Amino acid sequence: MLQAHQRTAALKAAIDLDLFQAVGDGPSDVDTLARKCSASPRGIRILCDYLSINGVLRKENGLYRHSVTSAAFLDPRSPACVASIAKFLGNPAMHQTDQHLADIVRNGRTSLPGQGSVEPDNPIWVEFAHSMAPMMAPMAAPLGAIALDGLTGPVRVLDIAAGHGLFGIAAAKHNPQAQIFALDWAAVLEVALSNAQKAGVADRLHLLPGSAFDVEYGGPYDAALLTNFLHHFDPPTNVKFLRKLRVAMKPGAMLAIVEFVPNEDRISPPMAASFSLQMLGGTASGDAYTFREFSEMLSEAGFSNIQQQPLVPTPQTLVSAKA
Amino acid sequence: MLQAHQRTAALKAAIDLDLFQAVGDGPSDVDTLARKCSASPRGIRILCDYLSINGVLRKENGLYRHSVTSAAFLDPRSPACVASIAKFLGNPAMHQTDQHLADIVRNGRTSLPGQGSVEPDNPIWVEFAHSMAPMMAPMAAPLGAIALDGLTGPVRVLDIAAGHGLFGIAAAKHNPQAQIFALDWAAVLEVALSNAQKAGVADRLHLLPGSAFDVEYGGPYDAALLTNFLHHFDPPTNVKFLRKLRVAMKPGAMLAIVEFVPNEDRISPPMAASFSLQMLGGTASGDAYTFREFSEMLSEAGFSNIQQQPLVPTPQTLVSAKA
Repeated sequence: MLQAHQRTAALKAAIDLDLFQAVGDGPSDVDTLARKCSASPRGIRILCDYLSINGVLRKENGLYRHSVTSAAFLDPRSPACVASIAKFLGNPAMHQTDQHLADIVRNGRTSLPGQGSVEPDNPIWVEFAHSMAPMMAPMAAPLGAIALDGLTGPVRVLDIAAGHGLFGIAAAKHNPQAQIFALDWAAVLEVALSNAQKAGVADRLHLLPGSAFDVEYGGPYDAALLTNFLHHFDPPTNVKFLRKLRVAMKPGAMLAIVEFVPNEDRISPPMAASFSLQMLGGTASGDAYTFREFSEMLSEAGFSNIQQQPLVPTPQTLVSAKA
Repeated sequence: MLQAHQRTAALKAAIDLDLFQAVGDGPSDVDTLARKCSASPRGIRILCDYLSINGVLRKENGLYRHSVTSAAFLDPRSPACVASIAKFLGNPAMHQTDQHLADIVRNGRTSLPGQGSVEPDNPIWVEFAHSMAPMMAPMAAPLGAIALDGLTGPVRVLDIAAGHGLFGIAAAKHNPQAQIFALDWAAVLEVALSNAQKAGVADRLHLLPGSAFDVEYGGPYDAALLTNFLHHFDPPTNVKFLRKLRVAMKPGAMLAIVEFVPNEDRISPPMAASFSLQMLGGTASGDAYTFREFSEMLSEAGFSNIQQQPLVPTPQTLVSAKA
């Protein structure tokens, strides 16, 4: 476990070196991979052996080849490739709290200045919008459909912390008369706009740059998307924010929240429950909240009909409520 | 895998906070542990949940308690506690190459200046001598017995890269007439001397401070110990060094080498094979060598009767040879 940091470093290095592209050309020896990656044979051998030990690659008769996992999720040829998430999760900013974790536990809050990862205009969210899209893409279409379920004709959808914009774009594709209002830091919205242009829905994407706590939302909205936002803040802050949000929504409008939602024991399922540690390291008071905690926050803010639904096969959960 | 670095950070933080001592007092809730560790309840809850998710602690009915593993190996009350190794393996110097691993693979050598971890008088070896002793202790007595097998009366034992000194001390205890000559950087030998004093054998410990490549060994020696040294260097350097060593040994004297020795496939067993990555990150040309490679180096340097023997339950192997 004290060496587990090497696993992160090795996978990130392999992605940065385009190793999985090279392995995808066919079973290869060290010298071939070294040439294709413009790297040293010593380095490639040791890295590929390490990845084979960890099941990421397979080594047979001195040749390295894809595992089922690396072929599907790490080779850029695969439509399911998520290698770009290494740019966000492997960002030095995401690791700088590791060496201070004992102090963070002592103090109960991030060692980063101010509000940590949610400081205004933090550039990591531009990286997030660029890099994490492939991880979110499988959720986007189902979420768009759920959020707009039963709504026809011209509708207005508010997409808070829009990031890559994929969720709002999915809603726009689901309903050709939907107008999407995307809120995020200005530099992040440029990424969302670019994705909307690629998807041919940019004319229905409206930008609300700034802080979700301060910007005038306009409205009233027929639906609202709130993805991976509430975990950055403490419950009183979230309740205050949710009240502001509800006022901008039509009565009975659907709020679709995507979150890491651990069970009441807070140690299962493993990925959702582990997310708390990231919020401890990166924020002043964020957390991975249980469904009970979300229900309390939403009820206090005036929402009703609160339900949850796992977003299989992702580690996330949809929490829905009516304004 | 991109989040595996959190596992290292969490375990190191828990050790630094004396959390396993506190848990050892009995099953405890968050507030009790927070008080005992002088830490925040938020931080302790999230850290203990994360450790429970990873099987290091157990959580039952909101109370945290030892797992079998943490009771044996992480609670300072346990004679088998190895928590101090976090000070060496969790040392920032051991992690600073993580962010540069792609460049290290490109260049085929450490990103650290000069010879990396084996630069003269590198202070990490003082930390090693202090922190890694509990990990080495179970090997020391068997190794001392093997190295001095069949030798009686006054013998001279050379202990190269003595570190904590435990291997030489074990030899001194095995044979009350053995004189031990310990070679390492001067600051490291202070740790070995202190351990020899505690063991009551300091009067038979002789210090050879400096580089193993430069210091005059004296001799001739009846046995030599060479633990976790050869992996830092390339084969030509090792052959040159082994020749110098053999000349200082009596003909037929035993050389006892302790190393991480992967199988010919270089991907098994996992811990020994993974060690190569650490040598890639920290040295210019070191490696975890196979038994065939050790045999070649030793033969070329004039050693014979080369054998290997796994040091179960450690991940290391004894490679022995006769001068």
